[in-house]
Amino acid sequence: MQDLERFVQLVLAGHKRSVARAISLVENEAPVKFPLLEALYPHAQKAYVLGITGSPGAGKSSLVDQLIAYLRSMSLRVGVLAVDPSSPYTGGALLGDRVRMIRHATDAGVYIRSMGTRGHLGGLSRASRDVLRILAAGGCDVILVETVGVGQSELDVMGIADTVAVVLHPGAGDVVQAFKAGIMEIADLYVVNKADLPGADKVVAEIREMLDVSKPHAPWRPPVVKTSSQEGSGIDALWQAALQHRDYLQRQGLWAARRREREAEEVMELARDLLVRDLTRRLRETAGSLPALREVREGLRDPYSAAREVAGRLLQQLEGRA
Amino acid sequence: MQDLERFVQLVLAGHKRSVARAISLVENEAPVKFPLLEALYPHAQKAYVLGITGSPGAGKSSLVDQLIAYLRSMSLRVGVLAVDPSSPYTGGALLGDRVRMIRHATDAGVYIRSMGTRGHLGGLSRASRDVLRILAAGGCDVILVETVGVGQSELDVMGIADTVAVVLHPGAGDVVQAFKAGIMEIADLYVVNKADLPGADKVVAEIREMLDVSKPHAPWRPPVVKTSSQEGSGIDALWQAALQHRDYLQRQGLWAARRREREAEEVMELARDLLVRDLTRRLRETAGSLPALREVREGLRDPYSAAREVAGRLLQQLEGRA
Repeated sequence: MQDLERFVQLVLAGHKRSVARAISLVENEAPVKFPLLEALYPHAQKAYVLGITGSPGAGKSSLVDQLIAYLRSMSLRVGVLAVDPSSPYTGGALLGDRVRMIRHATDAGVYIRSMGTRGHLGGLSRASRDVLRILAAGGCDVILVETVGVGQSELDVMGIADTVAVVLHPGAGDVVQAFKAGIMEIADLYVVNKADLPGADKVVAEIREMLDVSKPHAPWRPPVVKTSSQEGSGIDALWQAALQHRDYLQRQGLWAARRREREAEEVMELARDLLVRDLTRRLRETAGSLPALREVREGLRDPYSAAREVAGRLLQQLEGRA
Repeated sequence: MQDLERFVQLVLAGHKRSVARAISLVENEAPVKFPLLEALYPHAQKAYVLGITGSPGAGKSSLVDQLIAYLRSMSLRVGVLAVDPSSPYTGGALLGDRVRMIRHATDAGVYIRSMGTRGHLGGLSRASRDVLRILAAGGCDVILVETVGVGQSELDVMGIADTVAVVLHPGAGDVVQAFKAGIMEIADLYVVNKADLPGADKVVAEIREMLDVSKPHAPWRPPVVKTSSQEGSGIDALWQAALQHRDYLQRQGLWAARRREREAEEVMELARDLLVRDLTRRLRETAGSLPALREVREGLRDPYSAAREVAGRLLQQLEGRA
């Protein structure tokens, strides 16, 4: 990239195609990745990141769709990062089942990006941090991070959010399932969606009960809000609850502290990724010339001792002993 | 481990607690991991690995339960590796919802192991290969690898199987969903479970149609079998279809070829893991003494340039330039 500075200016100006291109460059591990993210980083600090997770079928996509409309009505710029660890696809165009959101795609103040698993060196949560910073630098005031399902990858991804909203709906076993899946530990607020269906109040009560039992003295008690994507109700309450949590973080000095603690962890992850990339390249160069790999391919040797030999050789080479 | 040789003998004799302990040692990345797996490897070649995957609710666990009983009735020793990427738990005792299988737990010819995601350095599919070899060395003739769900991790795990059975059931959109999720590319045979429910024949027809369209000239056409865990029917047909695929692999010379190709890939993964482990240790030692990490923690610096510095320093150190 010859003209990095000009490109950075375009991203900072919120130029939609440049933002999309920046994300693609970073996702593809282009050589410009590090310089680009270093240049954008100082401008990526203000966005508020709201994570939205919960079991499939809870209506998260509709909720996100309505949140976008709500935030746009206040003239806020909105980024959406839809993360699906079960999808191999990554990109701007492929929105999977998130068809509804497409109506916002032409809005100049809305940036939607979906993200699958394929080809993210350091994992999905690592990659999503980078994308988040690009969206923030592009001028998004709020970034909604939506995940499908409640697997470990989803929990990890939620580690990038300032506030995590867990969406449940009136359905047998839902609450208990969510609590079992480790969701409780990351929830800053609960959303009972499909509140027009019978049983919504029971779910609200169940959540409160769980909170009473498990977190009686926690400094932050997650609020529980009811929404109905069907009726379009409760979105304002959801947003107010999120802001409450944001205020709490800021009041307690946790806002910056949490972000910086994560960034320090990121340094180690990023450094490891850089080293792994470097070593993988060297490994490929080295392995071809070693008999170990050929021996495994011919069924003459176990992969474990071969790996020990290959790794040992590489370290020796690095240390100038070979 | 002072007496590796004696321990290896116990594992090879199929001593149940030793097999379990070997798995735990390997999962915990104990120093004995490599020597142990190197010793077991030559004895881990004969087991047939049947992968069983499909969307949640398809009744995979009941199916596995009945397969165990069926294989035991032929006096085959059976290993079961139940992989759940959404569960943080790993271990012998925690079988999650797989309660039914517990009835086999006391059978000396059945080895059941469940596996979650936590703490597997090289990922779940990497770790499951090691566990598979231990089960095989312990004398299992057949190893059933069951995954919940159909996410990317599940697809990766299925890469360790000789034959992959995809389980579907009569339910709206199931077939299309499965094909969308990339399941089709890994299926060697299809199982339509809950065949006692209405709509089973429609699912069978849909699968055949999909196969006609997508794989009209493939050298192996995946058979479609109907089972009913409720009625206990179809297990024999399922097993015969699996054996058909195994015979096909052997006839075409693919059996050993595929395994060796995977093992060669494994060498690179294992070598990378060894290097990453070594480097992570060195990184931790190095990072503390570098100002970069402190600067990030104090909000004075972006994580990207800090990571570049940390990684660069480490390589310099390795190369004896610092």
